[in-house]
Amino acid sequence: MAFQYKRLDKNDVALLMVDHQSGLLSLVRDFSPDDFKNNVLALADIAKFFNIPTILTTSFESGPNGPLVPELKAMFPDAPYFARPGQINAWDNADFVQAVKATGKKQLLIAGVVTEVCVAFPVLSAIEEGFEVFVVADASGTFNPTTREASWSRMAEAGAQMMTWFAVGCELHRDWRNDIEGFGGLLASHLPAYANLIQSYSAQNG
Amino acid sequence: MAFQYKRLDKNDVALLMVDHQSGLLSLVRDFSPDDFKNNVLALADIAKFFNIPTILTTSFESGPNGPLVPELKAMFPDAPYFARPGQINAWDNADFVQAVKATGKKQLLIAGVVTEVCVAFPVLSAIEEGFEVFVVADASGTFNPTTREASWSRMAEAGAQMMTWFAVGCELHRDWRNDIEGFGGLLASHLPAYANLIQSYSAQNG
Amino acid sequence: MAFQYKRLDKNDVALLMVDHQSGLLSLVRDFSPDDFKNNVLALADIAKFFNIPTILTTSFESGPNGPLVPELKAMFPDAPYFARPGQINAWDNADFVQAVKATGKKQLLIAGVVTEVCVAFPVLSAIEEGFEVFVVADASGTFNPTTREASWSRMAEAGAQMMTWFAVGCELHRDWRNDIEGFGGLLASHLPAYANLIQSYSAQNG
Amino acid sequence: MAFQYKRLDKNDVALLMVDHQSGLLSLVRDFSPDDFKNNVLALADIAKFFNIPTILTTSFESGPNGPLVPELKAMFPDAPYFARPGQINAWDNADFVQAVKATGKKQLLIAGVVTEVCVAFPVLSAIEEGFEVFVVADASGTFNPTTREASWSRMAEAGAQMMTWFAVGCELHRDWRNDIEGFGGLLASHLPAYANLIQSYSAQNG
Amino acid sequence: MAFQYKRLDKNDVALLMVDHQSGLLSLVRDFSPDDFKNNVLALADIAKFFNIPTILTTSFESGPNGPLVPELKAMFPDAPYFARPGQINAWDNADFVQAVKATGKKQLLIAGVVTEVCVAFPVLSAIEEGFEVFVVADASGTFNPTTREASWSRMAEAGAQMMTWFAVGCELHRDWRNDIEGFGGLLASHLPAYANLIQSYSAQNG
Amino acid sequence: MAFQYKRLDKNDVALLMVDHQSGLLSLVRDFSPDDFKNNVLALADIAKFFNIPTILTTSFESGPNGPLVPELKAMFPDAPYFARPGQINAWDNADFVQAVKATGKKQLLIAGVVTEVCVAFPVLSAIEEGFEVFVVADASGTFNPTTREASWSRMAEAGAQMMTWFAVGCELHRDWRNDIEGFGGLLASHLPAYANLIQSYSAQNG
Amino acid sequence: MAFQYKRLDKNDVALLMVDHQSGLLSLVRDFSPDDFKNNVLALADIAKFFNIPTILTTSFESGPNGPLVPELKAMFPDAPYFARPGQINAWDNADFVQAVKATGKKQLLIAGVVTEVCVAFPVLSAIEEGFEVFVVADASGTFNPTTREASWSRMAEAGAQMMTWFAVGCELHRDWRNDIEGFGGLLASHLPAYANLIQSYSAQNG
Amino acid sequence: MAFQYKRLDKNDVALLMVDHQSGLLSLVRDFSPDDFKNNVLALADIAKFFNIPTILTTSFESGPNGPLVPELKAMFPDAPYFARPGQINAWDNADFVQAVKATGKKQLLIAGVVTEVCVAFPVLSAIEEGFEVFVVADASGTFNPTTREASWSRMAEAGAQMMTWFAVGCELHRDWRNDIEGFGGLLASHLPAYANLIQSYSAQNG
Repeated sequence: MAFQYKRLDKNDVALLMVDHQSGLLSLVRDFSPDDFKNNVLALADIAKFFNIPTILTTSFESGPNGPLVPELKAMFPDAPYFARPGQINAWDNADFVQAVKATGKKQLLIAGVVTEVCVAFPVLSAIEEGFEVFVVADASGTFNPTTREASWSRMAEAGAQMMTWFAVGCELHRDWRNDIEGFGGLLASHLPAYANLIQSYSAQNG
Repeated sequence: MAFQYKRLDKNDVALLMVDHQSGLLSLVRDFSPDDFKNNVLALADIAKFFNIPTILTTSFESGPNGPLVPELKAMFPDAPYFARPGQINAWDNADFVQAVKATGKKQLLIAGVVTEVCVAFPVLSAIEEGFEVFVVADASGTFNPTTREASWSRMAEAGAQMMTWFAVGCELHRDWRNDIEGFGGLLASHLPAYANLIQSYSAQNG
Repeated sequence: MAFQYKRLDKNDVALLMVDHQSGLLSLVRDFSPDDFKNNVLALADIAKFFNIPTILTTSFESGPNGPLVPELKAMFPDAPYFARPGQINAWDNADFVQAVKATGKKQLLIAGVVTEVCVAFPVLSAIEEGFEVFVVADASGTFNPTTREASWSRMAEAGAQMMTWFAVGCELHRDWRNDIEGFGGLLASHLPAYANLIQSYSAQNG
Repeated sequence: MAFQYKRLDKNDVALLMVDHQSGLLSLVRDFSPDDFKNNVLALADIAKFFNIPTILTTSFESGPNGPLVPELKAMFPDAPYFARPGQINAWDNADFVQAVKATGKKQLLIAGVVTEVCVAFPVLSAIEEGFEVFVVADASGTFNPTTREASWSRMAEAGAQMMTWFAVGCELHRDWRNDIEGFGGLLASHLPAYANLIQSYSAQNG
Repeated sequence: MAFQYKRLDKNDVALLMVDHQSGLLSLVRDFSPDDFKNNVLALADIAKFFNIPTILTTSFESGPNGPLVPELKAMFPDAPYFARPGQINAWDNADFVQAVKATGKKQLLIAGVVTEVCVAFPVLSAIEEGFEVFVVADASGTFNPTTREASWSRMAEAGAQMMTWFAVGCELHRDWRNDIEGFGGLLASHLPAYANLIQSYSAQNG
Repeated sequence: MAFQYKRLDKNDVALLMVDHQSGLLSLVRDFSPDDFKNNVLALADIAKFFNIPTILTTSFESGPNGPLVPELKAMFPDAPYFARPGQINAWDNADFVQAVKATGKKQLLIAGVVTEVCVAFPVLSAIEEGFEVFVVADASGTFNPTTREASWSRMAEAGAQMMTWFAVGCELHRDWRNDIEGFGGLLASHLPAYANLIQSYSAQNG
Repeated sequence: MAFQYKRLDKNDVALLMVDHQSGLLSLVRDFSPDDFKNNVLALADIAKFFNIPTILTTSFESGPNGPLVPELKAMFPDAPYFARPGQINAWDNADFVQAVKATGKKQLLIAGVVTEVCVAFPVLSAIEEGFEVFVVADASGTFNPTTREASWSRMAEAGAQMMTWFAVGCELHRDWRNDIEGFGGLLASHLPAYANLIQSYSAQNG
Repeated sequence: MAFQYKRLDKNDVALLMVDHQSGLLSLVRDFSPDDFKNNVLALADIAKFFNIPTILTTSFESGPNGPLVPELKAMFPDAPYFARPGQINAWDNADFVQAVKATGKKQLLIAGVVTEVCVAFPVLSAIEEGFEVFVVADASGTFNPTTREASWSRMAEAGAQMMTWFAVGCELHRDWRNDIEGFGGLLASHLPAYANLIQSYSAQNG
């Protein structure tokens, strides 16, 4: 059976951000806090940049899990937002699933905290329902690298594609000419090493 | 062929704990002793919490492998318990297999020491017999990370799903509303970082 | 100048536990949560076992730093306890220093969160005042190993001795015959690998 | 000889930022780019917060080393700024040293890129001239951890104190009551894990 | 379905080197700079040694990404060379694809910077078109090991074979007798440890 | 298609040891020299213990690759031994393949140096010819962990099972009762941690 | 004060091996079991080779700590051997100290398990009494690298010299001509990488 | 006692390269082979660039240790060269010491293989004789990082300064204006990341 490259299409993709809450973020230890914050916000910026329908969901915001991080609230003020009353797998929340399906998109980008639960469970559910699922692995965090590796194995075996925010942005953008300034700016603000290149370049060409 | 999400079902799952013996535990070096003890006891607490049929087995308890760790004995006083007379693969012990089948469950959670032998062998045997097998990877230990990676590769290629105790607990629980206090307490006692969140929260809401 | 072995003396030592609060503990990432919890509680058990005067202090308990962890509160209900109104260096709190000096001890064991601030600052102050200072390095945590190494360098250059809870316990105990059962039990409850040895041994000698 | 705690004093300290240039930053590989950017900007924010005299210097800005990073330029528009014509050790530049001495401060915070050259050389020179020198180790970067360790050894043996930006900020601030809001805000903007604590806290106390 | 060993055949393979540009190379942090430079040049030497058709391509050479590294330019002066006007996936550049197909080769070796974009995208495109694709994993670099692992997972699941330059060289050479001196010299110049063996040997047999 | 557990059968397996030569061993850096020597000799001891037909082969013994390590020569004095005149893939040597087939075994254990070439090439060839192939991953070494991971990915995707010497020994032995003393002795001589258990046990039961 | 090179002198040195017992060895996790076993036996071989007075001591052999490892017993059948009745610091055992002093040596090599207790305590005691103390750091093991680093800091600050078995052997031997065959054989049996060099060499010069 | 910055002075320094032989280099595992080769050759280039008197020495070249690496031979054809007949510590070789003293230099740069023996021994001897000794730590290699750390501790405590080749070059050069082209070229040829900066820069300014 021939391989088909299921390529991210900015017109056919939605982003699901699951449980990026202040309490749960304290549990993430497979990335440094600086790296993880940057990865999550870079993914959010990508969604804004490409106008990708974005759906937010949280688990028990009023308890120790804490509120959705304020940056995401501020960036997606009009996004569908589901504070789940108890379902651990967001896909068990009918309103959430309805909102996902209402986007009419075939492809789903999923990121969340923690990887093996809040990400893996809806990933597996969505694959079962026929979506093409892309895990944004570096905007998803968990307790330690061993746990991460186990969850990646489970998701990859099920057909999920393991990606990172930079790959997502580039696969969506396709061609720099679509917006050189905009995309370059997005990268510069989230890749300090790339920003350095731009600064050196600009110093010569300013 | 469409992917089917074989989801852990608390009514259709049994737990097999294989060779968590005091001597063999001395061989585990892919987790710190504190982490590993916590992972094993967390898995045991999950089994108790969900009333999952649990089967214990050991290998040569009277020799250097040592006795089953006392915590497991104390937690599962009535569980079927098979001190194997010599079979390395627990699945080669007819009594053990009979007990597994007597549970009538289709799904098996398997953990043990050491991963590439005491876990991998019954995992492969059980898959061959048609069970849905979930490896509790962080409650299974071995000599070093390289050995672990090799054994994970073999088991995953055979169709086993790699999980960790936290993912197992969450997939079984499905919805916090089934028992918020109970499940929260279980997590707090095995996730110090989560206990910290609860304490900070309670201090504000006591 | 001849070296003098400043040996921990259970009759001349006090323990200072600084800012082991539920919020601040979320910042510790140079130890796994399981390891760190175990190290802190092991140190507390040692203080109890040897009846070492123990002084507790916290910083802004009512804010995000969170309350002192409940285990320490429960273990030292009668210990001097100073909720500092704002001083970052506990040694800047006169009541705290007075309590330290009131113990009449020449040696100080200091542990806390985070290492380079809540530990290092009082360590340097206490050395300056002539105390013999022992850092309990594995019951002190911080953001990452690089930060830890920098703080260890600063404290060691100032004359602090870098120790760990197990070394502290053994240097205080001096001779197993002072209490074999008691000290063995303490070790077993905090060193799973040692507990395994005892279990294997007992199985042969029960 | 009794140890004297040379404590950072906000009224007697100056900050030297050496060669944080866009090209040279590309060479830093002992920190992740996100972590390092955050560390450098946190240190700069601390200098601003405490009104610490700050001196900037660069090496061959017009060549491959690249310009000073724009954030530092923007934060310290009026700081003495020395684009060295060739001296590798900033202390070999008479104007730079004159500016340092003109601050009238006895204590120096030094950070830069790369650690074993742009930091270590002026550190050793300044110690020789009698300054109390504090290396801001996590705002200083180099090629790899081995190089870093060698340079730390050389500087610590010479009497430099190894610190990190968070320790610097706390030792300067001394008491939260000096400005709770201001200092808390500074920490929150550079310690994502601390920001999470504040958000969880605020959600309960808003 | 029986496994078929798709073995590299020097008469049926082309090499695609994608975006090995001076700016982008600054972003590579999953290899040390020395290791990565060596790996890329070793791969290039292999292509020269076996006269493998080689195609070069770059992205925005005139901007911050920088020019193709001069060593590759010098080694392949007559190779098809495509400075893409904007396409991120080289396979979206019709001229590039045409050149690839014009080689008439069924097998493709692909290496580039960064792995999850400049390598992964054309890898997936080429597999979809029926090529047998071999990723030269150690001549491809990216931001960190986690990103690399995610991209390897995606490519391997799609059917790409993960290789390294040494394996590529050996699989192409097949038999030392085809050119002992030449191949040995190639290895010696890129494997210092092998060069040491040769020197020790030669000292005995010179 | 149901999974079938292809279990190692001591009556249907042969061992191929490929290029464990003194020069090539100098290139192995993904294991410590002590660990790797132990792993290779443990595998050899297992072959002797179970009387598994063993075939040795080397590449250019008279050159820098060096002679077969003397321990293997001494252990298998009568084993078929092929000093290949130039073929890199041992499977390209007709005599070697003939010897493999002459064993009449369906299962092959393969170990060698370096993993991605001397192991991977015959592994892929043997799978193509229908053998069940088990890689003894810890008795196979290469330049670094990244190279190892790439080669494991290639072999596992082709259907090879990744094992380690301890798993091989246990899967062959099946039941301790087949020879408790012999197998225990084998383990003790290659697992120092297991030897320690036996010594502690014997001290109590001597 | 001028530095004086306190060089190991085979005529003025004694070796103290402290608590290398089968149970305690199970606790060592800062070295792989293979590496650690090799290091300990290499040190023992060195002592034999140079006829260095060696003193053995153990702690609670009849309990969980287990017996002295049999290899050391066999190698030093006539060495003074002190099964301490309870003292944790071997230097608190008068018979042990008397035996040390009876050797008449000024230099002491000390190795043991665990580093921060069984090694560090007698190291500090011996320095206080004026001995020149050399820690054989790689024949001394403990729970994890962090504990090791803390104990090294304490011992080095007290004036102990940190060495490893290979450095000890070479500093004692001084000149290969004292016994080329003997010393080369010793190295070959404990440095597999050196044995490989010898084998390659011998194959050319046999 | 005031600290004095003993600064490398190109007119008062000699370089000792000890035992960089093809066999011994096979033992180095605390650096990747590519990194180590680069570090050693960079140091040699620095010596050439500054016309620093360089002395070479080897140990048993005709045996398994192998010949001096050919690159060093070629670079220093006229350097004093001492093939020691047996002394392990080069400083025990009277001819070598005489040559060192004949340079009339007060400062010594020392690098070699292996660090804790071939470097540490002459380092300690030279310090004892009053030389200012600088260890070129990254041009010195050994078996593993633990061994390296022990040897660094011993040398640093004795007063040796731990440096790396890049710091050596910069401290010798003092001012870029002494030879911008020459020094820049030297760095570019040994720092691939710096070469990338130069290439990007030149592309804009060519």
